Amino acid sequence: MKRILVVNGPNLNLLGSREPEIYGSEGLKDLEERIIARGAELGVEIELFQSNSEGEIIDKLQSASGKCDGIIINPGGLTHYSVSLRDTLLALKLPVIEVHISNIYAREEFRAKSVIADIALGQISGLGLSGYLYALDHFASMK
Amino acid sequence: MKRILVVNGPNLNLLGSREPEIYGSEGLKDLEERIIARGAELGVEIELFQSNSEGEIIDKLQSASGKCDGIIINPGGLTHYSVSLRDTLLALKLPVIEVHISNIYAREEFRAKSVIADIALGQISGLGLSGYLYALDHFASMK
Amino acid sequence: MKRILVVNGPNLNLLGSREPEIYGSEGLKDLEERIIARGAELGVEIELFQSNSEGEIIDKLQSASGKCDGIIINPGGLTHYSVSLRDTLLALKLPVIEVHISNIYAREEFRAKSVIADIALGQISGLGLSGYLYALDHFASMK
Amino acid sequence: MKRILVVNGPNLNLLGSREPEIYGSEGLKDLEERIIARGAELGVEIELFQSNSEGEIIDKLQSASGKCDGIIINPGGLTHYSVSLRDTLLALKLPVIEVHISNIYAREEFRAKSVIADIALGQISGLGLSGYLYALDHFASMK
Amino acid sequence: MKRILVVNGPNLNLLGSREPEIYGSEGLKDLEERIIARGAELGVEIELFQSNSEGEIIDKLQSASGKCDGIIINPGGLTHYSVSLRDTLLALKLPVIEVHISNIYAREEFRAKSVIADIALGQISGLGLSGYLYALDHFASMK
Amino acid sequence: MKRILVVNGPNLNLLGSREPEIYGSEGLKDLEERIIARGAELGVEIELFQSNSEGEIIDKLQSASGKCDGIIINPGGLTHYSVSLRDTLLALKLPVIEVHISNIYAREEFRAKSVIADIALGQISGLGLSGYLYALDHFASMK
Amino acid sequence: MKRILVVNGPNLNLLGSREPEIYGSEGLKDLEERIIARGAELGVEIELFQSNSEGEIIDKLQSASGKCDGIIINPGGLTHYSVSLRDTLLALKLPVIEVHISNIYAREEFRAKSVIADIALGQISGLGLSGYLYALDHFASMK
Amino acid sequence: MKRILVVNGPNLNLLGSREPEIYGSEGLKDLEERIIARGAELGVEIELFQSNSEGEIIDKLQSASGKCDGIIINPGGLTHYSVSLRDTLLALKLPVIEVHISNIYAREEFRAKSVIADIALGQISGLGLSGYLYALDHFASMK
Amino acid sequence: MKRILVVNGPNLNLLGSREPEIYGSEGLKDLEERIIARGAELGVEIELFQSNSEGEIIDKLQSASGKCDGIIINPGGLTHYSVSLRDTLLALKLPVIEVHISNIYAREEFRAKSVIADIALGQISGLGLSGYLYALDHFASMK
Amino acid sequence: MKRILVVNGPNLNLLGSREPEIYGSEGLKDLEERIIARGAELGVEIELFQSNSEGEIIDKLQSASGKCDGIIINPGGLTHYSVSLRDTLLALKLPVIEVHISNIYAREEFRAKSVIADIALGQISGLGLSGYLYALDHFASMK
Amino acid sequence: MKRILVVNGPNLNLLGSREPEIYGSEGLKDLEERIIARGAELGVEIELFQSNSEGEIIDKLQSASGKCDGIIINPGGLTHYSVSLRDTLLALKLPVIEVHISNIYAREEFRAKSVIADIALGQISGLGLSGYLYALDHFASMK
Amino acid sequence: MKRILVVNGPNLNLLGSREPEIYGSEGLKDLEERIIARGAELGVEIELFQSNSEGEIIDKLQSASGKCDGIIINPGGLTHYSVSLRDTLLALKLPVIEVHISNIYAREEFRAKSVIADIALGQISGLGLSGYLYALDHFASMK
Repeated sequence: MKRILVVNGPNLNLLGSREPEIYGSEGLKDLEERIIARGAELGVEIELFQSNSEGEIIDKLQSASGKCDGIIINPGGLTHYSVSLRDTLLALKLPVIEVHISNIYAREEFRAKSVIADIALGQISGLGLSGYLYALDHFASMK
Repeated sequence: MKRILVVNGPNLNLLGSREPEIYGSEGLKDLEERIIARGAELGVEIELFQSNSEGEIIDKLQSASGKCDGIIINPGGLTHYSVSLRDTLLALKLPVIEVHISNIYAREEFRAKSVIADIALGQISGLGLSGYLYALDHFASMK
Repeated sequence: MKRILVVNGPNLNLLGSREPEIYGSEGLKDLEERIIARGAELGVEIELFQSNSEGEIIDKLQSASGKCDGIIINPGGLTHYSVSLRDTLLALKLPVIEVHISNIYAREEFRAKSVIADIALGQISGLGLSGYLYALDHFASMK
Repeated sequence: MKRILVVNGPNLNLLGSREPEIYGSEGLKDLEERIIARGAELGVEIELFQSNSEGEIIDKLQSASGKCDGIIINPGGLTHYSVSLRDTLLALKLPVIEVHISNIYAREEFRAKSVIADIALGQISGLGLSGYLYALDHFASMK
Repeated sequence: MKRILVVNGPNLNLLGSREPEIYGSEGLKDLEERIIARGAELGVEIELFQSNSEGEIIDKLQSASGKCDGIIINPGGLTHYSVSLRDTLLALKLPVIEVHISNIYAREEFRAKSVIADIALGQISGLGLSGYLYALDHFASMK
Repeated sequence: MKRILVVNGPNLNLLGSREPEIYGSEGLKDLEERIIARGAELGVEIELFQSNSEGEIIDKLQSASGKCDGIIINPGGLTHYSVSLRDTLLALKLPVIEVHISNIYAREEFRAKSVIADIALGQISGLGLSGYLYALDHFASMK
Repeated sequence: MKRILVVNGPNLNLLGSREPEIYGSEGLKDLEERIIARGAELGVEIELFQSNSEGEIIDKLQSASGKCDGIIINPGGLTHYSVSLRDTLLALKLPVIEVHISNIYAREEFRAKSVIADIALGQISGLGLSGYLYALDHFASMK
Repeated sequence: MKRILVVNGPNLNLLGSREPEIYGSEGLKDLEERIIARGAELGVEIELFQSNSEGEIIDKLQSASGKCDGIIINPGGLTHYSVSLRDTLLALKLPVIEVHISNIYAREEFRAKSVIADIALGQISGLGLSGYLYALDHFASMK
Repeated sequence: MKRILVVNGPNLNLLGSREPEIYGSEGLKDLEERIIARGAELGVEIELFQSNSEGEIIDKLQSASGKCDGIIINPGGLTHYSVSLRDTLLALKLPVIEVHISNIYAREEFRAKSVIADIALGQISGLGLSGYLYALDHFASMK
Repeated sequence: MKRILVVNGPNLNLLGSREPEIYGSEGLKDLEERIIARGAELGVEIELFQSNSEGEIIDKLQSASGKCDGIIINPGGLTHYSVSLRDTLLALKLPVIEVHISNIYAREEFRAKSVIADIALGQISGLGLSGYLYALDHFASMK
Repeated sequence: MKRILVVNGPNLNLLGSREPEIYGSEGLKDLEERIIARGAELGVEIELFQSNSEGEIIDKLQSASGKCDGIIINPGGLTHYSVSLRDTLLALKLPVIEVHISNIYAREEFRAKSVIADIALGQISGLGLSGYLYALDHFASMK
Repeated sequence: MKRILVVNGPNLNLLGSREPEIYGSEGLKDLEERIIARGAELGVEIELFQSNSEGEIIDKLQSASGKCDGIIINPGGLTHYSVSLRDTLLALKLPVIEVHISNIYAREEFRAKSVIADIALGQISGLGLSGYLYALDHFASMK
């Protein structure tokens, strides 16, 4: 059975209340339930993690080594500067799918630059909460 | 019943033979069959189009006005310079999902710049042929 | 009698329906009729051409060599990258007036760069359909 | 009856003597007479102003508030740096047409950048003294 | 009664000992006492927070939602890269005044760039500890 | 008794009528009265000056040498290019506080660059007319 | 027997009439005859193609897969932006020699950038029509 | 007796398992033992610290004030963006030697930029674990 | 007899009092006397002009047309942005020598850029007041 | 009889041993023999020169003035910075063909910039040792 | 027995007299004696070379091929532009350690760029003359 | 008696024959005689040096330490890249005047950048051979 770690970075815990015109009205709990449900359908074991702290996210990811088969990550604001996070993902050598709920290419110019995009397997941007589910589908379908 | 136009730009007709280590060994026909099949499952009507000519792609997109509900487009090399294509998409005012089979952020630096990304609904990059199917799923699930 | 070729590039055939808040509600036909009418007043012979294809526009311009005295061109999206179009205009050695219906300096930053502006006689931007007529007036008044 | 203020910035008083191969041999007086004449034909009231002083041009423009319906301005060298002039035009909230006698895109690279172009209604460049007249025509034809 | 949260980022706890020629000899305690005193004069309730951890600052700010009316923040070094902090402030939708004790424009070039300045209400830089008090005055005087 | 010179640059005389959604509805007279009143409270002698002319502002500042103890300046559009103004302030060797009514970091990108910020004591941006008063408070409190 | 495809892009059909001071007075026919003649001498089979259309050039190149041993290409204006052409050449996996009749490094700055140069075997620039012949010689001499 | 604090930043705890082709197969423990051993030889007291959290590293460094004579730091990914870390080191006013195990100039372009290099005493890059020992030798030999 | 116009721009009237460590302790009067004296020696007629106003300097230069044989100009801060001044000098078609008292290449980076240097005959920088005299010598020696 | 000087810059004496996967296994002697042989066939007198010293290359080139009809140069690493070499070639006023054995556009980004390319007649890059021979052919065929 | 070549570039012969506040008061002789002494301790054979001439340094390095096991180089000013030197080091295929006596990251901005850093094994900067000794230690300890 | 070393860099030995429309028709000998003559008039001892070799120029300059009171240098093409030359001049700690015969600001853009200008006392550009004489005058007049 595949095991997927889903990591949400800073401010994703505000989902539903934060700028709902951009991020929608569903909260982090709703998102997590949808991911769990899809995991169940696909026969994939899901671990969920959210933190506002770069250090905690790095600790979590490091601890996943050997315990999961893929990582779905929405690094929030860390996307744009956290070379430390990039280094952790490089070290893990697991496939990573980067998800952004809003279209990062349609906002401030600095959002178009992700310091992890080139080392990820792929990226889904702008498809709302569904982006996480498509990432999960993708891991489920990979051999 | 929703109608989705799927447009593949220059060189996508070479799928399967072109750099299979990057693009996989399935050809354009395989891709199109998978899209048609998924469309059937989802109850979405699919129109498929591929051309190596910017002008023909623009003509096709213009003719879709009023005849489709969303566009899935992989503009190939046009992604990086065709402001004409951007203008067509702007004019259509339909939701657009931009798909790239390979991870455009992990290749030459100029590939990270898409002239349509900021006007699209979202973008899927690096998830292989499945990217088209997730885009289709997304259109099917939109209200 | 002077002969002027008026060329409209990609997406100008959508005039009237495309973003009317930017481009106005008159269509390409309306524009062409206004140009023909003004040509008649000024005693200038008009040839009109529109295409969404860079190649066709280049072919048309090349064929104009020796058959017209000036060119009015709105290259649409090609304005910003088509060095091929620039080369054709350089080769023709005819006076060229570049026209843009909307103010290209008040939109996305990339629109402020035209690859033909420095080889044109002049440029009219932001004066709506009238820009074509002023260009025509200018050719008529040139000795 | 429409009232249009025509403002010429630094060095435009040298018209006719300054680099005639670029700017032509007609002087500022000739230009002003042509503008007045065209204004008379069009039923538009014209006010003319030229100064080499940024401060005087700003004072003049401020005093036009409520007394004119549009501004035709050739800011001369101020085009490329005077944010103060830009601020005045922003404050006036009147339509502005920017005119340049020579083609600013065919000269030194810095001339291609205008600090007022994006807040103007439009721009005419490279059509000689006629540019002012087309700007006037345009104001006359606006509703 | 208005409630204002005053947040000091990394290294502000070193005030008084850190580069006193730049930051003065008063310590964080002195600063906090002056803020409390001014709050008392103005009838504004003050909450004070300092941390060297980006994650803790984000947690604190998130918890302020609905419990304060304005934020005074000196993000220290985070000013120049923490998009995560920016996202938190965007999510809160409270007025923010950014304060810097030293003149950030008179030091290393990278200090002139703040990733929160454009989403703040305003910024005070270089006025020493007093900057916090003026920010407080401003919140007190806002309707 | 301290003497402070308050200088307002181009277009600040339009306060109250110019873009009130940005600059508020109080006019320059209101601002000057508020400054005078605060000066009286603080026991600071105030001299006020506004001009749309860079040259006049430089003349005024030069004449202040030896006659004032500090300068509060809102250079308006000159902020972004007037190296001449910078040179005058450098020559005076008096403390300068730069004030901007609106948040210059939240507008056009070029507004974020001030050619005097690095030689000023400090800068207040985005706090409306109050910015001048805080600057005055600061001079009053300096030893 | 080696087979070489020689492709000329937009405006190369104007050879001889277009800017003869730069490109010389021989026409495309002359060039093609010289290439055919040299091919005959070298025992190399030549196929010639010219088009003003990016799409047609891409179609032609795709069709050459498996039918030729090397490509000599002068992409004309497409040199500087056609990532689509680059992608086709990448897909073909045949050796490519890029030829420019004039010295592209001695003209407008943008001409110094070729989007195919880094994937070509080599480049000959500025040696007139002979460049094609040297490219042919090179293919003939390769093992 | 000299006291040296050795700080390792994010992901250095993965030494030995993380990209051994770049970082070698010795783990953090091995490194720490080698440092302790060399400290003993040199008569230098060593304190060791590693954390994945920027905030904890800053806290640790602040607490070292007055308790150590020099700092050896490998900030990991923080090297490239943590202005907060830079500020802490500036505040400490202790000599700092920056160490990188791999050659940061031979990897991604962004790694060539260190936000602490200009305030350090010196930098050792690319000499593997030995870099720490040379830094220690250097502190031991300084007067 | 040759006639030379010597123009000093903004803040040069402060010579002697302004940053004497950079500009020396001689005042503008001293400079002017030295220029007059050297002119007398060389048999060159000197006209002197200083203003803090860009507009007045432009007016003065325009009035020199036909009345002088060369211009020595120290444009002060205008050096770095006044395209209007550049345009006046271009229009005059007289030889111009640009003089700077201090070494503009040894100060702030923006001072290294002069908007008139490329249209001047030459430039003398950093040789103090003597720079004006060498410029005068040069005009005297020119045929 | 034409006389051609062939100059090889720094490190070209290592041909054959230096990076044979890039430069091939033939040495400088082989190259020189091939050039001599081709010169004999073409009836062109050849002079050969190689040095690792910029100064010696400049001395050699200067001494060629009036003694040769064309220069073939591979400046090695000097290609990318030696303005002194550029100045020598400018001074000689002889036709120059720049040759690079490897494709300089397919290597480090800085190699794509040549400080002599714009003043050369043409450039051949990436065709191995044959590039020299084609250059020789070209000089032989020039009138 | 290992053989190490130690190369010092332009101006290193001035050590001790040149800017002693940056480079210390020990001369090149002192440095060379320290290197020889350390070599003796480590059982490493040392060859020393200094030159102010790029060409001589290249010649020396080329002659070292096959005669030494590693290179310690302080290229002095050549560090920042000598692609020729880079090419020589690339050709040698020996391990190289780049040493700088002063901290090149704490001086003029251009000093932070080394054209050899990415092809060296590692770099030591800012540790004074000891940098050479640590480099030697490193070569001695390598297997 | 003052002693001045006059150094001319690469290609200055071609004076008189090299591009006489830019550099005039007088040769290096003429220049040197004029300098000697002016030295005699001024009571200044002159030493002259020219070389095409960077290394020789550096050797010469180093040997001047303690034997001259000032340096006049025209570094030719070295002006734009020779950090080694810059380092020598920094080490000498003698006043340096940089002279260019032609106006380096009116030629190719790269010529406007001198790597020694900021460490020189001053610079004279565009005044022909006289520039050397004014530099000499300046040294003679310095106390």
